[in-house]
Amino acid sequence: MISRKTIDIEWGDCDPAQIVYYPRYLAYFDACTTGLFKKAGLSKRQMLKTYEIIGIPLVDLKVSFKIPSRVSEVVVVESEITEWRRSSFCIRHRLFNKGVLAVECFETRVWAGLSATEPDKIESKPVPEEVIARFSRGRSRARAREISRPRRATKKP
Amino acid sequence: MISRKTIDIEWGDCDPAQIVYYPRYLAYFDACTTGLFKKAGLSKRQMLKTYEIIGIPLVDLKVSFKIPSRVSEVVVVESEITEWRRSSFCIRHRLFNKGVLAVECFETRVWAGLSATEPDKIESKPVPEEVIARFSRGRSRARAREISRPRRATKKP
Amino acid sequence: MISRKTIDIEWGDCDPAQIVYYPRYLAYFDACTTGLFKKAGLSKRQMLKTYEIIGIPLVDLKVSFKIPSRVSEVVVVESEITEWRRSSFCIRHRLFNKGVLAVECFETRVWAGLSATEPDKIESKPVPEEVIARFSRGRSRARAREISRPRRATKKP
Amino acid sequence: MISRKTIDIEWGDCDPAQIVYYPRYLAYFDACTTGLFKKAGLSKRQMLKTYEIIGIPLVDLKVSFKIPSRVSEVVVVESEITEWRRSSFCIRHRLFNKGVLAVECFETRVWAGLSATEPDKIESKPVPEEVIARFSRGRSRARAREISRPRRATKKP
Repeated sequence: MISRKTIDIEWGDCDPAQIVYYPRYLAYFDACTTGLFKKAGLSKRQMLKTYEIIGIPLVDLKVSFKIPSRVSEVVVVESEITEWRRSSFCIRHRLFNKGVLAVECFETRVWAGLSATEPDKIESKPVPEEVIARFSRGRSRARAREISRPRRATKKP
Repeated sequence: MISRKTIDIEWGDCDPAQIVYYPRYLAYFDACTTGLFKKAGLSKRQMLKTYEIIGIPLVDLKVSFKIPSRVSEVVVVESEITEWRRSSFCIRHRLFNKGVLAVECFETRVWAGLSATEPDKIESKPVPEEVIARFSRGRSRARAREISRPRRATKKP
Repeated sequence: MISRKTIDIEWGDCDPAQIVYYPRYLAYFDACTTGLFKKAGLSKRQMLKTYEIIGIPLVDLKVSFKIPSRVSEVVVVESEITEWRRSSFCIRHRLFNKGVLAVECFETRVWAGLSATEPDKIESKPVPEEVIARFSRGRSRARAREISRPRRATKKP
Repeated sequence: MISRKTIDIEWGDCDPAQIVYYPRYLAYFDACTTGLFKKAGLSKRQMLKTYEIIGIPLVDLKVSFKIPSRVSEVVVVESEITEWRRSSFCIRHRLFNKGVLAVECFETRVWAGLSATEPDKIESKPVPEEVIARFSRGRSRARAREISRPRRATKKP
């Protein structure tokens, strides 16, 4: 399952060099992760309530900035889970500007709740099977679509 | 040369999980890079004017988030150049919360100006020798101090 | 002419009180102003180039926060120019959450360029007639609609 | 009681017009409000715990932007409570750049907790007398100082 988000580069996202101020890309990608889970049927707010977690905080981040983007440009971000581990998972975001890969980002996040013994402490918890299954089902459907329309590119314009 | 910046974690830096929203760390580190150059005698604004560059944009970023930080906590970031290349350089930031390493960040940035032939395009330029020298002088002094006080931990040379 | 923008409240827009951190509303409204001009045929980037201005910075701001909004909520902002002056203009933004007015914002902005005599200085310039005309055309159309459907509330024409 | 905060204008606070992006001023002022309460002995985090509130959200905001500020400039913000009401209070922030008033901001905030009957709802609560007293004591001291040094201007406590 891949989610796609179209983003207008706003004035306030750019710095005096007239290009996107890089921490803003990370805010974009955080919203894309939210969008990816929403596509799997899990709105952020509902997900936190249902699974009694406080969020899915980052533990590791790698970003490669290849091409700058500017005010009034429209970019597309493609996001997908690349790996599920016991209590963490990896996401890849690829931001395209006019079809060209402009920024690539790899996130590792944990499924995190408050500690039962020390309520001030955050600790990782096993990702529920049903959460992972929602993405796998999506993957199967995506694969099925891919088979019926074998010549689709879209991801690598 | 290592620069140190003390940062108050503000309310607006934190998210609904009550911890620092991770793109805010990147804004902290960007300010720390600015502080590092300032310590070497190069204020951001003056540096852009003097060397006719548009900035020192990131091309590569790696961050490891080890411990979350919270509202009203005070953290210290130590920043240093770890490598000079022809037209790029690497910086390491280490954010400490109560003396414990909480976030570690590795940046690769380029010395960037507008293209002479295509003024809409940004291109890397060789880092001026005198810029590098400003940090080397700092390093030499730091090394000299280190020799006279041989048993110091690396964070406070 | 009224422009409408639908905004997903993102995790990173919210603070530890679980509600939108108020400076983020101002970033929303800035994007809405950009959207309003775009609807009038003036993309931000093109507008700056065409009219040789550096932006439309704020000189005055009034905001009334009536109801808080939260993560995963979807809000709609309606924006319109309420007054044109010689070199400034007023905009009203109204943010609705589930149809209820949640935030109301009044901006006064100036049409601003660099001073011809002191290039480091920003100064206001007369708003070009053709820019105002673009909105008036919209207004005339809106007025025409209003006449034909006289009993509509202003928010949902 | 007046609190003063010195702020370095950072690269990421500025927009493509090379001046501070105005929502960033609001984040500055929010930090200044936090600083004002801290000066009165109430750190944000401790204050929320002690008085069982979720924050002091804004209900009303008025800002006058008089002079733009730029990268690498250092500004000073003076903040003070101008009025205490039953469950709300008013704050004035004045941002000075090289001694000149550059931005003036008036905030009205509420002392807010979760509703006892509807825990999802935020409601205003009476500001505790002891909180107000902390500022009054400060005011008295400030007044005493003023008497002994009668010729002070600009700060007007």
